[in-house]
Amino acid sequence: MHSDLWVEEKFEDFLGLRFKVEKVLFSGKSEFQTVDVIETKGHGKMLLNDGLVMVTERDEFAYHDMIAHVPLFVHPHPKKVLIIGGGDGGTAREVIRHASVNECTMVEIDAMVVDACKKYIPQTAQALENKKVNLIIGDGVKFVKETTEKFDVIIVDSTDPIGPAQPLFGEAFYQDVYNCLTDDGIVVSQGESSWYAIDIQKSLLSVLKGVFPQCYLYSFSNLTYPGGLWSFTFASKKYHPINDFNPKTVQESQLAFDYYNEKIHQGAFSLPNFVLKALQGLIDN
Amino acid sequence: MHSDLWVEEKFEDFLGLRFKVEKVLFSGKSEFQTVDVIETKGHGKMLLNDGLVMVTERDEFAYHDMIAHVPLFVHPHPKKVLIIGGGDGGTAREVIRHASVNECTMVEIDAMVVDACKKYIPQTAQALENKKVNLIIGDGVKFVKETTEKFDVIIVDSTDPIGPAQPLFGEAFYQDVYNCLTDDGIVVSQGESSWYAIDIQKSLLSVLKGVFPQCYLYSFSNLTYPGGLWSFTFASKKYHPINDFNPKTVQESQLAFDYYNEKIHQGAFSLPNFVLKALQGLIDN
Repeated sequence: MHSDLWVEEKFEDFLGLRFKVEKVLFSGKSEFQTVDVIETKGHGKMLLNDGLVMVTERDEFAYHDMIAHVPLFVHPHPKKVLIIGGGDGGTAREVIRHASVNECTMVEIDAMVVDACKKYIPQTAQALENKKVNLIIGDGVKFVKETTEKFDVIIVDSTDPIGPAQPLFGEAFYQDVYNCLTDDGIVVSQGESSWYAIDIQKSLLSVLKGVFPQCYLYSFSNLTYPGGLWSFTFASKKYHPINDFNPKTVQESQLAFDYYNEKIHQGAFSLPNFVLKALQGLIDN
Repeated sequence: MHSDLWVEEKFEDFLGLRFKVEKVLFSGKSEFQTVDVIETKGHGKMLLNDGLVMVTERDEFAYHDMIAHVPLFVHPHPKKVLIIGGGDGGTAREVIRHASVNECTMVEIDAMVVDACKKYIPQTAQALENKKVNLIIGDGVKFVKETTEKFDVIIVDSTDPIGPAQPLFGEAFYQDVYNCLTDDGIVVSQGESSWYAIDIQKSLLSVLKGVFPQCYLYSFSNLTYPGGLWSFTFASKKYHPINDFNPKTVQESQLAFDYYNEKIHQGAFSLPNFVLKALQGLIDN
């Protein structure tokens, strides 16, 4: 018997990314989205939500290094961290490596994502068993509206602004995020692609700019997302992502990273002219 | 009648990049390779050699800015530039914008690429009509072996090391490149992907390291190449790509770029740890 299975992520109606499937490990449909875990050829295990690639074992370190370590090395003493989304566990895994962090609360809306990753992608989800992690299955929008806790760093590790993640790109949400950050708090959010989704970036940054005194965009290379160049937003009450970053703290932490380093931290805030032009007035890079 | 045409670039046997085709403008087979020009949906006109995407109108500025302006802003007075390959004309277009450059020799092996681009992709190929460009249809390997001319900057704008470009990744070629560079000359070469082709990067850098006193790798984001993060090598007889780069010269040039700027120049030499580790001893970044 011959089988040639591929999974394809379509972008609009003009681009497709196809990955060779070795085996479908899990396929489910939750209240919020479809959830698939696939053993691929060439990229290890892969999580897809609503048909979009979220994580692969091969390159997840790039995304998780860059979403977690940039804010956590800018903030001089991050103790309490909140993650909204991030059901695969990779962001939590990187957050709790920081010695100063003694509590990482994570609010993920979809239990099916967490359960599937715990079972099939322990490379990321194993971190969710760590005692520093306080995992809440629930609505992140509701959580930030209702909580009385304050966090030093909030990481919005969301999917695209369709489906369950849509409110995570809105102003009401970020007003609540602002309110549950400490006076020197930082929020970093999944910020889409400058090549294909500059309008989403504009919209998200307009929201952030209306709430935070400082907003930045930084980029990294994601292997398995359409367009490769991927972005995070960095919004801050006090700290500047480069001027308040002391490169020595990276070495002093004695943490080893596969993607992140001091120079990558600084270089990530250097954006191409076409991005700077499109986001003029919305970012302080 | 319904037609749904796509063109797909396969990477090994586990990845495919598919682009929606509006119209096939040209399909030919030269002595060296197949040559296709396609009007795509979403990426404008696209050139493919042997089925691999070379250039699209949508993102070619990123590649051409980064291959040309990095060496030309490091070298303090580049007058004579040699391009090996680069048949689409985009690299030549950026080279001749530098006021100091009074002669750009380009040696492209495949007349069919040049002719197809002149006819269908004037956005890049129009530059080949400029009087500063001396276009030679011929073998770049033979050219650098036989020429008695000296060049300030040589740009190896090649396809992958299969087919006609294979000798452009070898030691004999780079010994000849060294010999036809001036005493402070720089050579920049298409350097493949750190995600998918780190072995080719290692091999190319080993060759360069055997010939040049200083070797570096720098990266940028290419929208339409597999993996996104793409690299150029920078090998130099004298100049350091950052320490000898004066950011002021970019503004003084009064040139406008869609991708390149002073910070991108510097940030491009910041590499992720997994790349630094794999290339340890081969690069001076």
